[in-house]
Amino acid sequence: MTAHERSRRLLEPCVGSDVVDAPTPVAVVDLDRAEANLARLHGYTQEHEIALWPHTKTHKSTVFGQLQFDAGAVGLTVAKPGEAEVFADAGLGPLLMHFPPVGELAWRRLARVAGEVPLTVALDSHGSAQGLSGALAAAGTRADVLVELDTGLGRTGLGSAEAACELAQAVDCLPSIEIVGVSTYPGHLRGSLDDLRPGLEEMNAMILEVREEFAKAGVSCERISGGSTPTRYLTHETCVNELRAGTAIFFDRQSAASEPSLGLEACALSVEVTVISTSVPGRVAIDAGSKTLTSDPHVDGGFGEVVGHPHLSIIAFNEEHGYIDTASSDAGLVVGDRLSVIPNHVCACVNLHDFVLGARGGTVEKLIEVEARGLVR
Amino acid sequence: MTAHERSRRLLEPCVGSDVVDAPTPVAVVDLDRAEANLARLHGYTQEHEIALWPHTKTHKSTVFGQLQFDAGAVGLTVAKPGEAEVFADAGLGPLLMHFPPVGELAWRRLARVAGEVPLTVALDSHGSAQGLSGALAAAGTRADVLVELDTGLGRTGLGSAEAACELAQAVDCLPSIEIVGVSTYPGHLRGSLDDLRPGLEEMNAMILEVREEFAKAGVSCERISGGSTPTRYLTHETCVNELRAGTAIFFDRQSAASEPSLGLEACALSVEVTVISTSVPGRVAIDAGSKTLTSDPHVDGGFGEVVGHPHLSIIAFNEEHGYIDTASSDAGLVVGDRLSVIPNHVCACVNLHDFVLGARGGTVEKLIEVEARGLVR
Repeated sequence: MTAHERSRRLLEPCVGSDVVDAPTPVAVVDLDRAEANLARLHGYTQEHEIALWPHTKTHKSTVFGQLQFDAGAVGLTVAKPGEAEVFADAGLGPLLMHFPPVGELAWRRLARVAGEVPLTVALDSHGSAQGLSGALAAAGTRADVLVELDTGLGRTGLGSAEAACELAQAVDCLPSIEIVGVSTYPGHLRGSLDDLRPGLEEMNAMILEVREEFAKAGVSCERISGGSTPTRYLTHETCVNELRAGTAIFFDRQSAASEPSLGLEACALSVEVTVISTSVPGRVAIDAGSKTLTSDPHVDGGFGEVVGHPHLSIIAFNEEHGYIDTASSDAGLVVGDRLSVIPNHVCACVNLHDFVLGARGGTVEKLIEVEARGLVR
Repeated sequence: MTAHERSRRLLEPCVGSDVVDAPTPVAVVDLDRAEANLARLHGYTQEHEIALWPHTKTHKSTVFGQLQFDAGAVGLTVAKPGEAEVFADAGLGPLLMHFPPVGELAWRRLARVAGEVPLTVALDSHGSAQGLSGALAAAGTRADVLVELDTGLGRTGLGSAEAACELAQAVDCLPSIEIVGVSTYPGHLRGSLDDLRPGLEEMNAMILEVREEFAKAGVSCERISGGSTPTRYLTHETCVNELRAGTAIFFDRQSAASEPSLGLEACALSVEVTVISTSVPGRVAIDAGSKTLTSDPHVDGGFGEVVGHPHLSIIAFNEEHGYIDTASSDAGLVVGDRLSVIPNHVCACVNLHDFVLGARGGTVEKLIEVEARGLVR
């Protein structure tokens, strides 16, 4: 029996029951909150005529992909050919592959996806474009292409308008692909909206320069894909017209502050855990550590937020144990007590689980498969 | 199709082919190295008449569990009832559940496991023992029990000989369980053997005190389970007679220094990755980030060791991207180049993958399922 089947057997009987009766540690999504999060994001983008292409990395699930389309998304963003296949096979598209595809296998798989749903690919090298073009032509399919720009993160993408335009011109003539614009990921920008503005202005200046170069060269730059969850509410102050913000469906301890009036109340995913030991004075151990909640850090330290217990701090993790400092709390926890923990980084957390429980008002409504987790490519 | 099935379909054709032809990012175990690692550990424990109960958290796979028995293990250690089921269903036992079982479901599942293979459970509370005893009695099965001691880590376990003996006496009379000794995890001890000695001496002193108390109370303390990969070669200097060291099957960037003559040459698991972008000067991006290699840190910084390229540093991660600083290297990497990366923490890395490739001499020998990864409990 696979790990997947074991988890399914254990969790399927939870549907219709109270969340607090589910075995732990298990990830639970408050569907009302997730839907409200999507509605707010859609409201913002609709007001400013920005197209929503949310990144699926946060949920890796067709259930939430469908929810994003229902809430007004124009397309979905993925990072791997395998993820593109998961959504395309479920009839969900258009898709944006926002990761430079490299190698015959990646190109061939994307070419097949492009036969199922409209496909856009962001890339930053001639080799990527050429390989993709060849595979698409061989499969009799086509894709739109965005030239990826590095606007400060220093990860992928071209760092000058000249280099971007050179690549665009060189590959626009390749068969079965068409340059339609540019993309960038401002992942280096964190903090309050005022902190973010100067960096976004720099980003915007570079994109405007690229757009001008593209225009001179006769290359289309209609689509400008950008955005991140922290910067999303400033998108309308830039020329970005497509927003990929993904984490905003669930939020987490790292990103909650970016939803001003709600904060942690916006967090739609928490992990149900159980106190498994109180034998060490001043702390308790829970049955969730880095393999359940992720070891991704938080700038203020700690490994998660214990819902309803602001004085309980998760001070350390092992793989399957969390250490909660109870020194400043009068919670009086005993072995067997249940707690809910909001993870530091929800995308990394979801990727650890084969399933999440979808719940409303404390009752499990459905078992949701994380179909795109842990794919090889 | 589940993520598991998608990965299987993609990786099955790799068997019999060169590792360098496998799609990336994929985890690869050098079977010769893993077997040599197990043989060295077994040699040490055999010489000192220490029973090997390696922790399966590192590989979470029945293939490697069988390999551990073949190499001389007496039993296997697990952390969840679901993990116990994976190994018991494959006929692999005896098993040690080294995690306090809490709740009806956990107790019932362990009682079933105890009907398949001899089971030992380490615990630190009366409630755990009572619940387990009740479930075992109801199922008509039995288990040996170790009282867990906290010898300095401050996670789980009882911190005084008095408390340990009190629990042992209180639960030894419960039906279907029998106290057979104690266990501890010296996870707070890191560093060179000389650095480790003082802490191990303290640990040993406490265990000796507990053993004396148990003897006075007429409770058996035959089995003393301990050990970690960093401390394993000092086990014979203590009264510990069962060693649970798990990471020593594969090693990683965090633990390699503990294998004195080999270091990184002992690392049996690496992740094959591909360079996907060279557009940012002074660095390249690879197709593996925290969702593939884990964000678990290293004391010297960095997120993994690039095999054969000591001057290449993995300086940052996003979820699917790794950033390699190429400033001090003349490797001249181009898009499409393949690299092998040894992760910081192999146990957390393996838990991200549904399969690893088992290889010898650069050829994939078999596809190995990580059957116990990501289980709910």
